[in-house]
Amino acid sequence: MRLYSYWRSTTSYRVRIALHLKGIDHEVVPVNLAKGEQHSPGFAALNPARGVPVLVLEDGTTLTQSLAIIDYLEGIQPKPSLLPDRQPERARVMAAAHVVALDIHPVNNLRVVQRLKAMGHGPEETAGWMRHWMNEGLNAFQAMIRTDTPFAFGDAPGLADICLVAQLYNAHRWGLDLTPFARLTEIEGNCLALEAFARARPEAQPDAE
Amino acid sequence: MRLYSYWRSTTSYRVRIALHLKGIDHEVVPVNLAKGEQHSPGFAALNPARGVPVLVLEDGTTLTQSLAIIDYLEGIQPKPSLLPDRQPERARVMAAAHVVALDIHPVNNLRVVQRLKAMGHGPEETAGWMRHWMNEGLNAFQAMIRTDTPFAFGDAPGLADICLVAQLYNAHRWGLDLTPFARLTEIEGNCLALEAFARARPEAQPDAE
Repeated sequence: MRLYSYWRSTTSYRVRIALHLKGIDHEVVPVNLAKGEQHSPGFAALNPARGVPVLVLEDGTTLTQSLAIIDYLEGIQPKPSLLPDRQPERARVMAAAHVVALDIHPVNNLRVVQRLKAMGHGPEETAGWMRHWMNEGLNAFQAMIRTDTPFAFGDAPGLADICLVAQLYNAHRWGLDLTPFARLTEIEGNCLALEAFARARPEAQPDAE
Repeated sequence: MRLYSYWRSTTSYRVRIALHLKGIDHEVVPVNLAKGEQHSPGFAALNPARGVPVLVLEDGTTLTQSLAIIDYLEGIQPKPSLLPDRQPERARVMAAAHVVALDIHPVNNLRVVQRLKAMGHGPEETAGWMRHWMNEGLNAFQAMIRTDTPFAFGDAPGLADICLVAQLYNAHRWGLDLTPFARLTEIEGNCLALEAFARARPEAQPDAE
């Protein structure tokens, strides 16, 4: 399978981590979002929403949306599982992941920030916008997870950890003060010590600049 | 179980539809977002992210995030199923749902619009902001679904239809031109003809104004 990915895209980063955790062979095809390659007609035919990640299967089926792609990977390669088998534990891990994936990331997405700039807001203001939503969301995330485990919900990383680590890459990039989030940076350290996370890092990608 | 809900909240609307489709008994507890009731200390203790919906189970367990709550409902009451059992069909339905739930709704959320207003943008500009993201996302959604079925992906409504119907409530409310989306309003009509959708509508809620 082929993963269309951009090194700095945190949604691509989530899928890269899941692929490596599950040991699924794949090829990475870089799409340069900064140069607008996602708006080319060829790419729009692949993904009408014109974003990464996109996973193309051997039979040509295209899958989009990072969490839906990860759901597919769970289906074809259930081990290691990224969500608990039982409810309501499963829904609680998913909810923490969704605080990052729905409450933080979409509001800070490249196209949203580009639109804010078109509406007259400068780089300082848009960086402040991003930090605001990260701060709000990470506060909620930190209140939702366990306090006594190496990872957000246990002894192995799962969907909440994947979303967290990708989001913290952006938090570092945009200068968020992480002092109130010691628990989160502790989990980040535990994750990045694992080979699957390290191989998925933006800096380890073929298109890293 | 108790569902904390606001009549106009489209994420609450999603969960209400799922509860009615599955025939799960529940009590609705209104939370007035317009009056800021989600920011009260009592509510923040229930949901650190200070939003609705929140589902409180009989044993006191609290579940947040609409899609995670629906995943829980799928777990405890699998029929009727809201997602295909098989991959990659399941991931494709989920991806369409996520275009609404991740690409459109979070960027148009009440708190985001309130922040834009605090940054000096008036009602016309914020309504234009909302219509922009709805137009982009619904275009992608329409390109991702089937063209020959009563519902987005088949003969019964599923997660993509649920997210669509809730989003179209907002599209009507904010005056989006739906002329290019005839396929979507056709699906909306088919959904709202079902009792489960009709009972979940904002106008049918105890706190509707």
